[in-house]
Amino acid sequence: MIRVLGVDPGLTRCGVGVVEVAADRRARLVHVTVVRTPPDMALEQRLVRIAAGVGAAMDEFRPDAVAVERVFAQANVRTVMGTAQAAGLALHAAASRSIPVTLHTPSEVKAAISGYGNADKKQVATMVARVLGLAEAPKPADASDALALAICHAWRVGAPTEAGARAVTLTPAQRAWREAERSVVSRRLGG
Amino acid sequence: MIRVLGVDPGLTRCGVGVVEVAADRRARLVHVTVVRTPPDMALEQRLVRIAAGVGAAMDEFRPDAVAVERVFAQANVRTVMGTAQAAGLALHAAASRSIPVTLHTPSEVKAAISGYGNADKKQVATMVARVLGLAEAPKPADASDALALAICHAWRVGAPTEAGARAVTLTPAQRAWREAERSVVSRRLGG
Repeated sequence: MIRVLGVDPGLTRCGVGVVEVAADRRARLVHVTVVRTPPDMALEQRLVRIAAGVGAAMDEFRPDAVAVERVFAQANVRTVMGTAQAAGLALHAAASRSIPVTLHTPSEVKAAISGYGNADKKQVATMVARVLGLAEAPKPADASDALALAICHAWRVGAPTEAGARAVTLTPAQRAWREAERSVVSRRLGG
Repeated sequence: MIRVLGVDPGLTRCGVGVVEVAADRRARLVHVTVVRTPPDMALEQRLVRIAAGVGAAMDEFRPDAVAVERVFAQANVRTVMGTAQAAGLALHAAASRSIPVTLHTPSEVKAAISGYGNADKKQVATMVARVLGLAEAPKPADASDALALAICHAWRVGAPTEAGARAVTLTPAQRAWREAERSVVSRRLGG
């Protein structure tokens, strides 16, 4: 059993979701929330509020691991700086509490959840609801994205074990995805 | 008299400089350092070290104001995300200590220090040394850039006064710069 806290970083809406995932991959919802800050608030006050909200969830739910969405500079330049800053605060909040923290790309999350790296937001939200046994997908999208990150982390990385082995098994889709990743790495290494 | 702490944000080298500036614009060096983190260190550990280093300087030197360089997404995409995250941590460190914090663009800093918005790094470093009465410019560039930011803030914004008025006088170059900024604002407003 691993408890993972996922963060979908953002200045206006920062999704925070906590799940517990068993070794047989079954997952249950522990907590989900969205930290919001008004666009007309001073940037530094927004950052203080986001760090406080994310940190409070870490303190209350004491996750074994934190997963944060990797932000790319290629995205909308108007919002990407704030998103990077929110992600940085989430990384800092986890590391300063000695909680292991990992970045996952949006395609890693989509592939882990739906078996398909280009799944759209609605497909991801539907799969999150199904995986967690919820009647409907948590809203807004930032909430279900944070849960998807947490589930993705548990399924891909699993609980830390003494031998460093993976503590969870993979679905066929995830196995295919991991094989594809490995072949990319081998090709890069000239293998 | 105002004491300002300037931060030139960066993951590998984060410049931190503290100056005291009198109402007659004379400035003296209080402290300067560069917080360094190795590129092969995990990102979250680098962020923890930067936040700790910047925060420690704020706690030790208790500035009246903090000035941080505004990061633009147009810069090198490989480094800009880390720079944005370091800047975000500096903003957070100041605001969480209730120290007023302001962003200044590189051209604002250059114009304030040298009267010329396109001054190169060497010209800025030379002017920083001259303003602070130092035999030579502090090195590396991140150190003198942090001091330039702090001086720029004191000269442009000055100490907070009850009436909200500017507590420092402007040089002719700064007056020209401010007029130019005002005319840009009026033009934007259709004035």
